[in-house]
Amino acid sequence: MTQTLSARPLSTADSQKLGFSNLRCRECGAEYEPVAKHVCELCFGPLEVAYDYDWLKRTVTRQSIQQGPHSIWRYRPFLPVTSERPIDVGTGMTPLVKAERLGRRLGLKNLYIKNDAVNMPTLSFKDRVVSVALTRAKELGFTTVSCASTGNLANSTAAIAAHAGLECTIFIPADLEAGKVLGSLIYNPTVMAVEGNYDQVNRLCSEVADRYGWGFVNINLRPYYSEGSKTLAYEVAEQLGWQLPDQVVIPLASGSQYTKIYKGFQEFVKVGLVADKPVTFNGAQAEGCSPIAQAFREGRDFVTPVKPNTIAKSIAIGNPADGIYALDIARKTGGQIQAATDPEIVAGIKLLAETEGIFTETAGGTTIAVLKQLAESGQIDPEAVTVAYITGNGLKTQEAIQPHVGHPLLISPKIESFEQALERARTLERLDWQEVSV
Amino acid sequence: MTQTLSARPLSTADSQKLGFSNLRCRECGAEYEPVAKHVCELCFGPLEVAYDYDWLKRTVTRQSIQQGPHSIWRYRPFLPVTSERPIDVGTGMTPLVKAERLGRRLGLKNLYIKNDAVNMPTLSFKDRVVSVALTRAKELGFTTVSCASTGNLANSTAAIAAHAGLECTIFIPADLEAGKVLGSLIYNPTVMAVEGNYDQVNRLCSEVADRYGWGFVNINLRPYYSEGSKTLAYEVAEQLGWQLPDQVVIPLASGSQYTKIYKGFQEFVKVGLVADKPVTFNGAQAEGCSPIAQAFREGRDFVTPVKPNTIAKSIAIGNPADGIYALDIARKTGGQIQAATDPEIVAGIKLLAETEGIFTETAGGTTIAVLKQLAESGQIDPEAVTVAYITGNGLKTQEAIQPHVGHPLLISPKIESFEQALERARTLERLDWQEVSV
Repeated sequence: MTQTLSARPLSTADSQKLGFSNLRCRECGAEYEPVAKHVCELCFGPLEVAYDYDWLKRTVTRQSIQQGPHSIWRYRPFLPVTSERPIDVGTGMTPLVKAERLGRRLGLKNLYIKNDAVNMPTLSFKDRVVSVALTRAKELGFTTVSCASTGNLANSTAAIAAHAGLECTIFIPADLEAGKVLGSLIYNPTVMAVEGNYDQVNRLCSEVADRYGWGFVNINLRPYYSEGSKTLAYEVAEQLGWQLPDQVVIPLASGSQYTKIYKGFQEFVKVGLVADKPVTFNGAQAEGCSPIAQAFREGRDFVTPVKPNTIAKSIAIGNPADGIYALDIARKTGGQIQAATDPEIVAGIKLLAETEGIFTETAGGTTIAVLKQLAESGQIDPEAVTVAYITGNGLKTQEAIQPHVGHPLLISPKIESFEQALERARTLERLDWQEVSV
Repeated sequence: MTQTLSARPLSTADSQKLGFSNLRCRECGAEYEPVAKHVCELCFGPLEVAYDYDWLKRTVTRQSIQQGPHSIWRYRPFLPVTSERPIDVGTGMTPLVKAERLGRRLGLKNLYIKNDAVNMPTLSFKDRVVSVALTRAKELGFTTVSCASTGNLANSTAAIAAHAGLECTIFIPADLEAGKVLGSLIYNPTVMAVEGNYDQVNRLCSEVADRYGWGFVNINLRPYYSEGSKTLAYEVAEQLGWQLPDQVVIPLASGSQYTKIYKGFQEFVKVGLVADKPVTFNGAQAEGCSPIAQAFREGRDFVTPVKPNTIAKSIAIGNPADGIYALDIARKTGGQIQAATDPEIVAGIKLLAETEGIFTETAGGTTIAVLKQLAESGQIDPEAVTVAYITGNGLKTQEAIQPHVGHPLLISPKIESFEQALERARTLERLDWQEVSV
């Protein structure tokens, strides 16, 4: 399913046969060849992939997409790769679940869950961005790929590199939980545990990228990597029967995913795959690391870095690179960016599990908690089509939820013992119910 | 996505519009109405669902299947349900991965992995059987569903019952690992931890089923439940471009899945969806619980129960209900049933992860270990299309693999420290290589 292409940069001839052309600075508009580069040399702005939307409009149809693979690669023309055979391990096309039971609890009539807790192969949305980044890495001739990460990204990079036969080195903070380290070590990459904070890890990685010419998915390959998140928009539009939702709720870490889902919807409108309509973009952060929510609340158009302190570690980025772009989107679409406390996050995880059978990690609990706030305060329309993005699996953050799920009822293997326990359980339920009803 | 139907038993008129008709005793052929019943009243043989294959042949086409949902329910006419809207949480249609890198290691040119480690919603093949059982449970009017389980089945029943809004009680042995209990508790079922061995738990459950009229997925609903495994055959045939593989390797617990995959291939041949051809059925057990492999080795047509002692707990059934049927299939298709030791199982998990980026649980490690044995001993054809079934996710049995994955290299956040560690890692790799070469 994979193939190595030569490392030459993309020529103009190639780009005519593809949706994407160059890298373009988001701030000053300067253009660059599509190589491994993420910062503008002129203004230090972030580089983004540019596309030929006229070509896409002429070439891509709903039918051509539907005839593609059941993975993110059905949207290949909208992704920054040249390969006819990208690295495809079934990533994407996760279920869009009509959440009838959660909707009833929250008073929302048209609620959907985009469930990336079951994304392939490593059960988080990171598999989307890594599939794109590593496909591009092979095209650019990299033989060693790498990342700096505390969890999901490391798991995904190690797994997909293993499948693709790329050498892989992972950089993690030295104090990471054993379970998360296992989720990377199992794929047999080289794992470097760095004694330092995340900023120090990142600086070291930039130096290694320069000196060794490795492809770091979230550093020098970042422009390609981040485009992978657009598939979260495309899939929702297709799964809703080729239309946009009315409102979305998305967790915010760096803000990248949020801005790319916005870009994805815009692109589908631009090339005529869906009708234009307003989509309200709501964002969710953990109270213990909520620099974007704070800026939103205070009406600022800049983000003040914070020191993270929350159970939602996978979204705990104190200095979010795309924070200002997220603020802009929330404001211009009429959305909210709100924060949830750790207890609200735990309650959000439990609520989603017991109503929909979906076990998400803390980031997903944050999304559900903010969705609940928005529903209860009347800040979202209860009749409108609402999509909440669940981005990772609860098996990865077991320690956050373990103390809050209660215990089994201990019985002996006799029917009398079972009946006593059942009576006890039913009494407890009635008590719970009274508490709720009061 | 779900719907409750009335509880009346299926009438003859209904069955004419469906693939399935009655329950039939596998031993004496006695027929029963399709209610919640699993044992023949006449001979105590197991009941199986019977189908009208002439009707299926006239009605189902490759195209009608392809136009169905991207889940097990695209094969609804082959499943024992009447509902137009079964419980569909995206279960099934997991990737069939062409395993180029693992194939090269084992000398197999056409190796595929059927990857149910990413099945939805709870990351094991049990989601298939539970989706079918709970859909049927609703049709039969059950409002409370249940199961006796030590892990995957409990997780799946609790999750899908939550989504479908069914009351759920889970019975587990009292000494279960905390992580596995969490994977059920999170969905908020009633969990009964029984102080006794698995046989005692099962006997208690049979008594509860009789007295309370609950639907136990693996007891009184077993004939419907077990049919769900047939989708593992249908999907592979469809994903191979509507043809059967030449040889398969399947883990054996009760033997049910193995016999149902066989049934699934036979059915597709019978109704003309694929061409007939011989498929060799190989089975994998853990040495510490290998009653079927022992019977196979000794040429017996009966299975002597054993006391399980292996890390592969999810397949550790000492007295396998379908063992004799599995033996029969292995022998008549020219397959092998072999066992892997615990160290071989661990090595199998690591081999699959580092070559294909797929992290499986101990059952999957068993399959890969036996696949390796078969490849190395020349008992399978290296040119033939081979499918190995991976049935569960490694995040569920972390404790089995944790001691065997090594440790990260500890460094300070300085380029010199990184370079020393890299040199160390490369030396270790060279040493590994020499060991292998010697």
